[in-house]
Amino acid sequence: MDIAARRKADPAHWRLATAIRALSMDAVEAAQSGHPGMPMGMADVATVLFRNHLKFDAAAPNWFDRDRFVLSAGHGSMLIYSLLYLTGYEQMSLDQIRNFRQWGAITAGHPEYGHAEGVETTTGPLGQGIATAVGFAIAEEAMRAQFGADLCSHKTWVIAGDGCLMEGISQEAIGLAGHQKLKNLIVLWDNNDITIDGRVSLSDSTDQLKRFEASGWRTLSCDGHDPADIERALSDAASGQDDRPVLVACKTIIGYGAPKKQDSSGAHGSPLGAEEIAAARAAFGWEHGPFVIPEDILADWRAIGARGREAREAWATRVDAAQNRDEFARRISGGVSDRLAPTIAALKEQALASKPKLATRKASEMVLEVINPELPETIGGSADLTGSNNTKTRDLGAFTPENRQGRYIYYGIREHGMAAAMNGIWLHGGLRPYGGTFMCFTDYARGAMRLSALMGLPVTYVMTHDSIGLGEDGPTHQPVEHLAICRATPNTLTLRPCDLVETAEAWEIALSSESTPMVMALSRQNLPTLRETAGENLTARGAYVLREASATPRVILMASGSEVEIAVAARETLEAEGVPTRVVSVPSMELFRDQDAEYRRQVLPAGTVRIAIEAAVRQPWDWLLLGERGREEASGFIGMTGFGASAPAPTLYKEFGITAEAAAAEARRLLG
Amino acid sequence: MDIAARRKADPAHWRLATAIRALSMDAVEAAQSGHPGMPMGMADVATVLFRNHLKFDAAAPNWFDRDRFVLSAGHGSMLIYSLLYLTGYEQMSLDQIRNFRQWGAITAGHPEYGHAEGVETTTGPLGQGIATAVGFAIAEEAMRAQFGADLCSHKTWVIAGDGCLMEGISQEAIGLAGHQKLKNLIVLWDNNDITIDGRVSLSDSTDQLKRFEASGWRTLSCDGHDPADIERALSDAASGQDDRPVLVACKTIIGYGAPKKQDSSGAHGSPLGAEEIAAARAAFGWEHGPFVIPEDILADWRAIGARGREAREAWATRVDAAQNRDEFARRISGGVSDRLAPTIAALKEQALASKPKLATRKASEMVLEVINPELPETIGGSADLTGSNNTKTRDLGAFTPENRQGRYIYYGIREHGMAAAMNGIWLHGGLRPYGGTFMCFTDYARGAMRLSALMGLPVTYVMTHDSIGLGEDGPTHQPVEHLAICRATPNTLTLRPCDLVETAEAWEIALSSESTPMVMALSRQNLPTLRETAGENLTARGAYVLREASATPRVILMASGSEVEIAVAARETLEAEGVPTRVVSVPSMELFRDQDAEYRRQVLPAGTVRIAIEAAVRQPWDWLLLGERGREEASGFIGMTGFGASAPAPTLYKEFGITAEAAAAEARRLLG
Repeated sequence: MDIAARRKADPAHWRLATAIRALSMDAVEAAQSGHPGMPMGMADVATVLFRNHLKFDAAAPNWFDRDRFVLSAGHGSMLIYSLLYLTGYEQMSLDQIRNFRQWGAITAGHPEYGHAEGVETTTGPLGQGIATAVGFAIAEEAMRAQFGADLCSHKTWVIAGDGCLMEGISQEAIGLAGHQKLKNLIVLWDNNDITIDGRVSLSDSTDQLKRFEASGWRTLSCDGHDPADIERALSDAASGQDDRPVLVACKTIIGYGAPKKQDSSGAHGSPLGAEEIAAARAAFGWEHGPFVIPEDILADWRAIGARGREAREAWATRVDAAQNRDEFARRISGGVSDRLAPTIAALKEQALASKPKLATRKASEMVLEVINPELPETIGGSADLTGSNNTKTRDLGAFTPENRQGRYIYYGIREHGMAAAMNGIWLHGGLRPYGGTFMCFTDYARGAMRLSALMGLPVTYVMTHDSIGLGEDGPTHQPVEHLAICRATPNTLTLRPCDLVETAEAWEIALSSESTPMVMALSRQNLPTLRETAGENLTARGAYVLREASATPRVILMASGSEVEIAVAARETLEAEGVPTRVVSVPSMELFRDQDAEYRRQVLPAGTVRIAIEAAVRQPWDWLLLGERGREEASGFIGMTGFGASAPAPTLYKEFGITAEAAAAEARRLLG
Repeated sequence: MDIAARRKADPAHWRLATAIRALSMDAVEAAQSGHPGMPMGMADVATVLFRNHLKFDAAAPNWFDRDRFVLSAGHGSMLIYSLLYLTGYEQMSLDQIRNFRQWGAITAGHPEYGHAEGVETTTGPLGQGIATAVGFAIAEEAMRAQFGADLCSHKTWVIAGDGCLMEGISQEAIGLAGHQKLKNLIVLWDNNDITIDGRVSLSDSTDQLKRFEASGWRTLSCDGHDPADIERALSDAASGQDDRPVLVACKTIIGYGAPKKQDSSGAHGSPLGAEEIAAARAAFGWEHGPFVIPEDILADWRAIGARGREAREAWATRVDAAQNRDEFARRISGGVSDRLAPTIAALKEQALASKPKLATRKASEMVLEVINPELPETIGGSADLTGSNNTKTRDLGAFTPENRQGRYIYYGIREHGMAAAMNGIWLHGGLRPYGGTFMCFTDYARGAMRLSALMGLPVTYVMTHDSIGLGEDGPTHQPVEHLAICRATPNTLTLRPCDLVETAEAWEIALSSESTPMVMALSRQNLPTLRETAGENLTARGAYVLREASATPRVILMASGSEVEIAVAARETLEAEGVPTRVVSVPSMELFRDQDAEYRRQVLPAGTVRIAIEAAVRQPWDWLLLGERGREEASGFIGMTGFGASAPAPTLYKEFGITAEAAAAEARRLLG
């Protein structure tokens, strides 16, 4: 059916969809930058979805029980901006659309969480949306189980492109969603056969329906330009007729209606140009100028935006009547539990009394054992390293299709999928996710970890086996650059506690965080309790004096995590030799950077030898070795200069020269 | 069939396979660390493979036309170490087996490339092996097309576990291999139903056969403990009956024969213990002590190791007789072409003559346009950003099933798969791979990029759009921490050229590298030609004086890539104000670090104000700001402190304060 026939077949639909296409073309043209092809191709599907299916109320964008809409193919951002403007989201003015991709506008090149209400998650790095959506769907199931369908019962809709489906993260998402039978997750695949390089057939020949079916999905197909056929497929998808997530393959034409560029990569990622836009307008029968949406069409769209009001009000009434409404309100606000501080305080006192020697991964488990029963909002998991990450506590049952009350997720060997799912779980609201893997596999999860940071989501990465201290598994499993990676990443809090007290403090920080993800770097090997005071959360200072020198310090030894023990031993040697030596524990460089200059000078005064000890690369330590504006400290570093090796951990520390003897020798050398 | 029946059914096979099982149990027990379950489970399959199919000669481990064997499930390293010892690889002595996982042994916890001959690639991070194998298979097809089946015709065999198949990277590998119809790639899936956390059903329910078929693979199944059935499946897989890669699902029991621990995660990752080992020995009918392989069994295995000798000698005869044998020898040696230096020199002269203003990604394309016709070993590609990465030159046809002469690979939207495939292409020999994506998507490729560094493979990552300078696509696409990430990674050369001359020099370094991967960070935006001399490859110095001060410098401005232009402009301002100012271009911190102290002092003498300018985070610059042993330089940094934003690039530079004015102002402030 050609465009003229489409126009005639369903004019009411046509004009709604055309409004999206026109705005998308116009905004990209005005910006002279952007991706018109995807919004033009998916306008029909999006129109049917918003008109007939999506549960939302444009007047209340953050209504908890709304359906979530995730634009995984984030380059098509004008699709969602158009929809938000047309349906009447207050923030999304026509001026914002006109200022697409300009400084200060909420209409960023890719949808950015926190810019415009209605954008549920940041997308753009391909595959992140679909994998984050799995987290939304998990959270929906969990909250429904915990609070009942009266308070939580909605779907998660995703629009994903070929790029999303080629990225490996999509397989992790698909596998997890199928296994978990997330029946309220519906993915609409923009099956347009085009990638940036050309036709999909240049690089892929996967039968996507078969692939999704192989992982336990139901699959449907539709003509993505026929509103009746779309409606049939979406109704079927939304019917919940069985317990599988649903893929709907929507056959579309990228840049639909742009006569010369449609169905080619020419429509994908650049403005169509004035001539092509004029020709498209003619084909659409759209006689309105740039950014002009006629009143009647806008009114119809606004009515769609108000469609969910009644449902929202009914929900609010149910919430008001609910017995557990206060706890529900606390949970969906993301607020910190008042049970946290006393529970941590008690554990710290206990740690000081018993002074255990244990791995910080085990210390982390001890914290979680007392925290999880008090904080019902936690939802833990691991990428198939449960017994190594020590992430599962006794009270957490497994989250499964049969037991949605379970608060522990077996994510499988899917680090990237886990990280993205945790983003989605937090974004959904009501739950506070943490998940574990080995520190080295930060590499596998980076794409989603960066989005945690960019979006400002307080998810916790429990990264155990955080150095050569893991021993025999060897260099593929031994992080050396990963602390540097996490510390270099904006808005990421890297916490590397040295004992049970600091680990408890680190978890207190993590579970109080409102807008920063945490990377908790934890040891495999046993470590002594070094802290001698409970009281103040000193980890929150980032760095602090753990052992004072016997007189004005001539040497300051800085260390984090498993190397603090080495610094303490080196101090004893140096003190015995008459060298007053201070040990500064540095569980978090970021938090230390946030302290005022006066405190930083107190901890690291000028005029001493400074040595940093960390079983990792030196790069992030240079600023602490540099000191306040480059004064004349002599400085040294005891750590790694290359990759690790396979051998028992004590051998590795000795062979790589990360020992108290080496630190003391370096101090002597620098003292001259 | 129980074990007793298995023993009786094929005793000749049984004793060969049992030797693997016994060595694996014993080595893990001696190390008190390791993974016995996988080698015990896959011993039968590996025995049939090595005995009947794998083309190799233990006396010549690096024979070019051997079949490649990749143990993707690298934790089962004792499987490959056992096979190398049994078949008679000279390096793999019984002492090495006894020293499994000990300092200095070649028997690392996971197979490490470069430690033991016969280990074709480093594995351990799950999924890397199968994805690297795709590169082996691509290289085999390409070399066969270029030099003929007489010189290159072999298979790539992979053993992969459930973990490999759950990792997202496996989907990228499967998709690419199926699309490219890599018929000589055969994956043997250790289908044992067990992961670390327990049964696979805890976290996955994917129908793997269906999944592989969906991506164009042929699939077979066998009973992984029945040698006849294994032989049937492997013969069928190796028959090359059609042009699809082949998956063989081998149903196995993890820890096969260990009576209490088999078929459970208890057999996966820790020693079995003396009692269980004794019981297993009894079940196997293996009456020999730890590490004892009876002479007759060893002799049978050694005969298997010598099986390929004739084929190798025949191949050598064919090579000797080949017309192009010298070029073939150069190609498979990985040697640097003598055409490289003059081609680069000519381009540099041309650049100085024309002084073009262009993006370094475009400069990179100009280099490749002259290099690719001269160096037939290059094989380029991009993860679906060909027109943005500027990686395809006119002379490179597409590498497709129909055109194996093509030297350009459309990798699809598969950054991780591309990186791993490039590792495999280099490891195979004969080709020098480069591939492009956006710098920010380093995040997606990290797992394989780290292995490039760990293995020491000189693959080149063409990372364009390397800062906020990409503009409107916004913070999801704007790297700010990625230069720090690459610079923190051992044995990774980060090159960020500022103009066409430096870009040509960077490529000269890249194409001469023997054991270091390169990350080439290239701009989207146009940059002026700043270099004024050709001659010496100054980029190879890492940092050098680009603009000298008019007198003894009071200020040194350091910058890389697109910010060198800003440093040059700031210098003009400061010089006009009477402040002698030097500009140091820093295309590579790693190479500067490798210079002698005298040169470093010449470039960065003490006693000046130092300012670094880079549109990225400060972390890697601190060591250059610190100076030689922390002297009293005042120092400043002009760069990013957080994520970027969506707006035109010039606006972003201004709003984030990365301007010549800001640099000059900082200099004035520091001069006091």
